Amino acid sequence: MLSTWLPASIPDETNLLNITRAKGSYLYTVDGRELYDGVSSWWCKPLGHCHPIVTNALAHQASLFEHHIPANATNSVIEELSSRLLGIFTQMDKVMYASDGSSAIEIAMKLAYEARLLNGEQAKNHFIALSGAYHGETALTLSVCGIDAYKKNYQGLLTQNFFIPNLTYVSSCDDDLWHESDFDEALYREFFNLHASKCCALIIEPIIQGANGLKIISKDFLSRLIHLAREYGLYIIADEIMVGLGRLACYSVCVSYLGFEPDIVCFAKNLTAGVIPMSAVVINKKITDIFRYYRKLFPHSHTHSCNTLGASVANAYLNHLANSDMLIEIKQNELGLLKMMQDFSNKYDFIINPRAIGGVAACDLNLPASAISQIFNLGIQCGIYLRPINNTLYVMPPLHDLTSDVPIIKSLLTMVLEVLQKWE
Amino acid sequence: MLSTWLPASIPDETNLLNITRAKGSYLYTVDGRELYDGVSSWWCKPLGHCHPIVTNALAHQASLFEHHIPANATNSVIEELSSRLLGIFTQMDKVMYASDGSSAIEIAMKLAYEARLLNGEQAKNHFIALSGAYHGETALTLSVCGIDAYKKNYQGLLTQNFFIPNLTYVSSCDDDLWHESDFDEALYREFFNLHASKCCALIIEPIIQGANGLKIISKDFLSRLIHLAREYGLYIIADEIMVGLGRLACYSVCVSYLGFEPDIVCFAKNLTAGVIPMSAVVINKKITDIFRYYRKLFPHSHTHSCNTLGASVANAYLNHLANSDMLIEIKQNELGLLKMMQDFSNKYDFIINPRAIGGVAACDLNLPASAISQIFNLGIQCGIYLRPINNTLYVMPPLHDLTSDVPIIKSLLTMVLEVLQKWE
Repeated sequence: MLSTWLPASIPDETNLLNITRAKGSYLYTVDGRELYDGVSSWWCKPLGHCHPIVTNALAHQASLFEHHIPANATNSVIEELSSRLLGIFTQMDKVMYASDGSSAIEIAMKLAYEARLLNGEQAKNHFIALSGAYHGETALTLSVCGIDAYKKNYQGLLTQNFFIPNLTYVSSCDDDLWHESDFDEALYREFFNLHASKCCALIIEPIIQGANGLKIISKDFLSRLIHLAREYGLYIIADEIMVGLGRLACYSVCVSYLGFEPDIVCFAKNLTAGVIPMSAVVINKKITDIFRYYRKLFPHSHTHSCNTLGASVANAYLNHLANSDMLIEIKQNELGLLKMMQDFSNKYDFIINPRAIGGVAACDLNLPASAISQIFNLGIQCGIYLRPINNTLYVMPPLHDLTSDVPIIKSLLTMVLEVLQKWE
Repeated sequence: MLSTWLPASIPDETNLLNITRAKGSYLYTVDGRELYDGVSSWWCKPLGHCHPIVTNALAHQASLFEHHIPANATNSVIEELSSRLLGIFTQMDKVMYASDGSSAIEIAMKLAYEARLLNGEQAKNHFIALSGAYHGETALTLSVCGIDAYKKNYQGLLTQNFFIPNLTYVSSCDDDLWHESDFDEALYREFFNLHASKCCALIIEPIIQGANGLKIISKDFLSRLIHLAREYGLYIIADEIMVGLGRLACYSVCVSYLGFEPDIVCFAKNLTAGVIPMSAVVINKKITDIFRYYRKLFPHSHTHSCNTLGASVANAYLNHLANSDMLIEIKQNELGLLKMMQDFSNKYDFIINPRAIGGVAACDLNLPASAISQIFNLGIQCGIYLRPINNTLYVMPPLHDLTSDVPIIKSLLTMVLEVLQKWE
C-alpha cells in the first residue's frame, strides 16, 4: 500500500509506474521498461532528464551554498537570473520569486489588486479570466479557473470572478482564424461594460490553454481581447508557466506571438528545466512605480523565494537557450508535429481536430470513455508515457533533441493508435 | 539597481548583504564578512549550509533522476519519505506534497473543506484560527492569518474566518501557566457555540507562533482548546512548518508536546534541511477514508509535487535525525538559550519577556522604533544576521552544532545589546 497520496488520484491508486532512473527523454521503471516521457513530466523538462548542463550547475552551486534568507540579502546568481528574465522584455522592472506556479499567480493577483488599491481604486477586487482557463489550484488561482472539474467542490472557499465566453480556437499558426478571428467586439464590449469597473486585471494563458485540453487560441482573437481590456483600464497578467521559456520556440509568448508586454508575467516549469521547484513573477515598471511612489513593501514571501540552487539551474538553462539552436529547432519541428497529427487524422476516423504549435501536438479522440481510459496503459505497453486530458490526446516532449525525437514519437503513437482503432 | 524585488521589501531596497558562499552556521559576503546565520535563513537550515549529508544526497539523486511526473508514477525515494513521515504518527495514512509551505496549508484547508462536503455538511466553509496566527501569504492562508500587517491590504480577496481571542502565552516549559493556564472555558464555549457550526476545522501553529513574534503558547491552553474544538466536531489542522522535524527537539510538536494526533499536519522548512523547496501534508485515516469511500480523487497538484531531489535530501536529513544525538542536543541547549535571554533581561532594563523553547530564544525590546530599526545593521557589524519582528529580538540558529554555537550566539548578541543600551 502506498504511503504517498499522489496528485490527481484517489487514495490507494494502483497501476502505477515505479521509476528508478531517467535519462534524456526516457523514464526507466523497476520492471525494466524504457518509456519515452511524452508529457516531459508535466510539461517541465525541456532538457529531458539528467542533462549535464543541469547536473553541473547543481553540483557547482551546491559546493558554494544552496539557499540563504532572501530578506535584506541577495547574491549574484539570483541577480543574473532576474536580469536574464528582464532582458526578454523592454518595459519590465523587477522579478519576484516563489516555488510553486500557483504561488506566482497568487503574487501576480495580489500585486494587481494592491496596485489598484494604492491608486485609490478600492472596489476592484475581481478579475476577468478566459473560459477554459487554468492558473493553479490554490484558492485564489482556482477563482480564475474556467474548468469546472477543478473548482466545483471548492466554491465555498472562492471569491467570484468573470469569464470571457466564446474563445476562437485554431489548429495552428497557418489556420485562417489565427490571423483573422470571428472576434465579436459588440459582445465583449457589453461584457467589459458590465464587469470591468469591478475588476483589476485580465488574466490569460497566452496562445495555449493547457489543462483545457491543449487548445490553441487565435492570435487575432487574443490580441483584440487584450486591446479591449487595456481600453477598459485593466492590467494584463500573463500566465506563461507552461508556454514560456522554450515550449513555443520563444522566451515570452506575449512578446513573440502577440507583440505586447503584459503588466505581470509568470514563469515556472521550464524556468529551472523541471529540476528544482521555482516560479518567477516579472513585473512591469507601471506597477513597481506605484509601490515605489508610496514606498510600500509587498508583504508576500516564501521560505524559498530566490532559492539559489534553482536560480543556478535556471541560469544554466537560459544560457543554453541563448547559445544553442534549441529555439530554432523547436520552430523547425512544429510543422513535423502538425503533419504527424494531420496524418493520424487522415488515417484514423476517430482522430479529429489535429493541432500543433511549437513543441506541442494534440488531437481529440472520437472514442468511448472506456477506450480513452485505456490509453495510459496502452502507452506504457508501447513505450511512451501518455496522459490524455478528457478526450484530448497530446504530446509535449522534451525539447533538447526534437529533430531526433519526432520520428520516435510518431512511431510510438502509431502503435498506440493501431490498438485504439479496434475500439472505434 | 537590483533586478530582483526581494521578499518583504520595497522596490530598490538598499543596504543589502551580497552573499557569495555559506558553510555550517555562517554566511559569507562579497565584502569579506563572516555572519552567524542567527535565523537559520528564515528558520529552515537545521544542518546549516553545505552539510555533507545534504551535498551527498543531492549528488547521488541528481545522477539518477531529478524529478518525474508524479501522476500515475512513484519511486522508492518519495515512498521512503512518506513512510518516514507517517512513522512519526500512529493514525496517519497518507502524505501529499507541494513546494511552498503556503501550498501545503491550502491543500490542508481544501481537504478539510471537501471531506465535510463529501460527508454532506455543505455549510462548513469557514475556519477557526488563533489570533496572532500566520500560515502563509496566498489568499486562502491569509484568510486564517491573525496578523493585520499581512492581510489588511488584501481583504477584498479574502473569505472571512473566526479568530480565538486571549491566548495564554508563557516564557518556557517551566512557566506555571505552561501546565495550568487561565483557559476561560465559558468564553470559548460561547465562541464555538456561535461559530463552530459554520466551520470545518481549527487551524493552529502548535506551541510557537512564529510571525507573531515567537510567542510560546501554554501547553495547557492549547490542549484544552483542541479538546473543546474536537467536542464541537472540528477537524484540527496543525501547521508544523516552523516547529516540526527538529526545531522543538522532536519530530511532531503535536505528538511530543500536546500528546495528540491532528487530522492534518503540514511540514516544510526543516523537511529538506532548507535546501530544496518542498512541503508535506500528512493526513489522518479519518479523512482519507472519506475520499476512499467515495472513490474521490483530490484534484490538486503542483508541477513539482513529490520532487525527488527534495525527497532525497529530506530522507538524508530525517535519517540523520534518527541516528544522531541531534534532537537530544537541541533539548539540552534549551535551558542555555533560556538562561541567556534571562541573563540579558537581568542585565539590560530594556529587555523584557525573555523566553525560549527548543532551538528558539526570544525577548521583547522596550526601545524606540528608531533603535529597533538599527538592529539589522548592528548585527551585521557585530557578525550576526538578526531580523527582529516588530519589537521582538530572537535567534533561531542552525541546530547541527548547538552546544558549540550557544556561547558564540551569546557573545555576538552581547555585542549588539551593549550598543543598543545607548538608546535606552
